[in-house]
Amino acid sequence: MLPYNIDHVAIAVHDLDATLADLHTQYGVEPVSREIVESQGVEEAMIAIGGSNLQLLQPLQPDSPVGRFLVKRGEGLHHIALAVPDIDAALEHLAGTGTRLVDTEPRVGGGGHRIAFVHPAALAGTLVELVEGTT
Amino acid sequence: MLPYNIDHVAIAVHDLDATLADLHTQYGVEPVSREIVESQGVEEAMIAIGGSNLQLLQPLQPDSPVGRFLVKRGEGLHHIALAVPDIDAALEHLAGTGTRLVDTEPRVGGGGHRIAFVHPAALAGTLVELVEGTT
Repeated sequence: MLPYNIDHVAIAVHDLDATLADLHTQYGVEPVSREIVESQGVEEAMIAIGGSNLQLLQPLQPDSPVGRFLVKRGEGLHHIALAVPDIDAALEHLAGTGTRLVDTEPRVGGGGHRIAFVHPAALAGTLVELVEGTT
Repeated sequence: MLPYNIDHVAIAVHDLDATLADLHTQYGVEPVSREIVESQGVEEAMIAIGGSNLQLLQPLQPDSPVGRFLVKRGEGLHHIALAVPDIDAALEHLAGTGTRLVDTEPRVGGGGHRIAFVHPAALAGTLVELVEGTT
């Protein structure tokens, strides 16, 4: 059940292209993938750094979780994603400890991975995503 | 100059012990180090996950950068730290690209590492710390 990696750290942005350009100028990095995830209302890009990734999230419309985050908080760090070997077991464990979940069942996220979100109230205001079986 | 790892992801917290207890209950993880860094006005704990770390930051006093962050934003994600092989070269490169820096010269941070902060205005509202030579 233990998370074995920080799969990614996500940043909510207004302009994916502009932030990718800033990342390239400042740190020389390039995205390894980019995709529209309709179910989450975002276009996302992944930038590999070491064994983890930065993820940029641009909302597809204002009335979406990331769109509302931008209105409320502005651009910036949005969530962290922990890789777990078995997301069903992880959710069962968390539910058993009384941890407040956003998703009680896994759903399909970017890259086709099974994911679930844990409520930020459970860990010092930090939105945590669980991702199954990434490397 | 390229960052070779996400050294850590930092979370600002009111109560380091309470958040460490939540992390243990939820994810079974334990801190690998804990120290007071007077120069930054924090007590910090590092929790290794895969090749990266979560870092918890509790301010030593309200009138400190993390203390002011908590008043303004509440608990939550505070910054990301990128490991670079040569922090002087990294700062020189960033200055040359016109990137807004918090620290134009490295200073000594947690664990005795040389660190410097890049202004959040430079990257989508995201405070970035550079850390030299961690594994």
